Amino acid sequence: MKDLAERAVAGDDRAVARLITYAENGHPDLHEAMRAIHCHGGKAQVIGITGVMGAGKSTLVSEIALEYRKRGKKVGIIAIDPTSPFSGGALLGDRIRMSRLTIDPGIFIRSMGTRGMLGGLTGAVYDVMEILDASGKDVIIVETVGVGQAEVDIIKIADTTLVVIVPGLGDSVQAIKAGLMEIADIFVVNKADTPGIERTMAEIESMIDLGYRPGMRKTPVMATSARECRGIIELVDSIQEHRFFLESSGSLPDYLRKRYEAEIVEIIHKRLMTMIFDEKVFKEKVKGLISRIETKETDPYSAAEEILAELLK
Amino acid sequence: MKDLAERAVAGDDRAVARLITYAENGHPDLHEAMRAIHCHGGKAQVIGITGVMGAGKSTLVSEIALEYRKRGKKVGIIAIDPTSPFSGGALLGDRIRMSRLTIDPGIFIRSMGTRGMLGGLTGAVYDVMEILDASGKDVIIVETVGVGQAEVDIIKIADTTLVVIVPGLGDSVQAIKAGLMEIADIFVVNKADTPGIERTMAEIESMIDLGYRPGMRKTPVMATSARECRGIIELVDSIQEHRFFLESSGSLPDYLRKRYEAEIVEIIHKRLMTMIFDEKVFKEKVKGLISRIETKETDPYSAAEEILAELLK
Repeated sequence: MKDLAERAVAGDDRAVARLITYAENGHPDLHEAMRAIHCHGGKAQVIGITGVMGAGKSTLVSEIALEYRKRGKKVGIIAIDPTSPFSGGALLGDRIRMSRLTIDPGIFIRSMGTRGMLGGLTGAVYDVMEILDASGKDVIIVETVGVGQAEVDIIKIADTTLVVIVPGLGDSVQAIKAGLMEIADIFVVNKADTPGIERTMAEIESMIDLGYRPGMRKTPVMATSARECRGIIELVDSIQEHRFFLESSGSLPDYLRKRYEAEIVEIIHKRLMTMIFDEKVFKEKVKGLISRIETKETDPYSAAEEILAELLK
Repeated sequence: MKDLAERAVAGDDRAVARLITYAENGHPDLHEAMRAIHCHGGKAQVIGITGVMGAGKSTLVSEIALEYRKRGKKVGIIAIDPTSPFSGGALLGDRIRMSRLTIDPGIFIRSMGTRGMLGGLTGAVYDVMEILDASGKDVIIVETVGVGQAEVDIIKIADTTLVVIVPGLGDSVQAIKAGLMEIADIFVVNKADTPGIERTMAEIESMIDLGYRPGMRKTPVMATSARECRGIIELVDSIQEHRFFLESSGSLPDYLRKRYEAEIVEIIHKRLMTMIFDEKVFKEKVKGLISRIETKETDPYSAAEEILAELLK
């Protein structure tokens, strides 16, 4: 395991991929590797990209990655897909469109599914960030469909968060009202070749003006057409400007701290859940208790207490 | 608290609403009420409805509820909304459309947000089912947007699950391939007034035929137009047929058992998370550890172990 960590740190992407799989599956010896990994991390720039489905996020991520490559940066991409029976087809298509990136050895892509509470795959995303960071990626892009709180939480720990909006979905203003103002460091109006772009941009800009207070950094609104490669250089410049803003204001270390905290919480959470719910004892115990719940001898709350008391004794 | 439970059991919907709020917020004395509640539950029929956004689920739920009212049943509706900055506007609209139902005292509606791991609002859904059940609702409808595993898990514990599809989204076949065959007890092709309905129905039916084995129950495909009230009577008949199928095959108690198990798991999960992550001790401890992580004296895995060791000692 330590050997694997060393190879990952040396930049061997096959070792990186293997480690990530171990992180996702909660390999019992992972902590060994992660300890070795940790000494080499804390340097990468993390960019979060979120937005509704169909906003062209995957194409945008590809273009941003290619632009960073032109600037001599190594890029790691974590694409978080909601694990949903409804999105299987569409997301697969996105990933296929992204696959041209895999030809470039300076770009590492990993797609991760979100899982329910007990699955905890999403939790591994913090480990994956550490692994990519330690393996020498200069820029880590985390892409997620903004459908659930779990995904929003992940995005919040990025140094710079892009919120991608498309004209004509009619939801730009609602989206901003509903709390995206706080999340977005940069608004990206993608598909700038579609009609309605001026209106969408004006709407967002006036919303930003409303919330603006003197002395604050003003959230920029960038127009891109990922498919036609327009606006990408300007967008990456804008991301770097935000990064510089964080550095000069001294708040950059806060983001790293938030990531470490999230990672610790996730590790503890996963350990406890595995400890409790994977044990045969639990399964057997629950089975017996449910029969008693059915006959109204006991109830779910008392049953839960009984199990907890036994576990924590 | 016991008094509140008694009033809820007697059918007082204001007491029901209060109890649900307590369940959502994890009120420390909730278990008292839930113990009293439990003796009166286990009778309601639970219907799960899921499908992509824009499939007209809320209107469909309204129509199904009204049809059950005509049949003399009391109805409880739990609408689970993904807590997302992107969906705020749209869902609010749905809820407004549903609000005409609130005039009928035989219908109780509650909208719940999904939350991240630590929020655990979704977890309360099992408590809410028990409360509605004990308060004398004959039918409980759980509506959810099928975006995440958490929502799919909730739907799985319904006696009868409807998967709603609309023509022309081009995702019907993918959806079925991606695992919805296993979830759906009834497929509903809503918006039957849109063009392409025949093709969508034919596609779904041929997929069902492919998976069909002699002796199995064949998943019906129903066409509805919730907005024009068409196909609703037939759909409710079909739900009742499925319920009868479960009763006669003796598998109905399994669903109730699954609900109880999910409830126990949720209670334990919430207790543990509150115990660990809400404590001031944890916050303080993490703060100190993160400074040591930053200086590479320790790492997130070792830090997590340190905290766990202290918690479980």
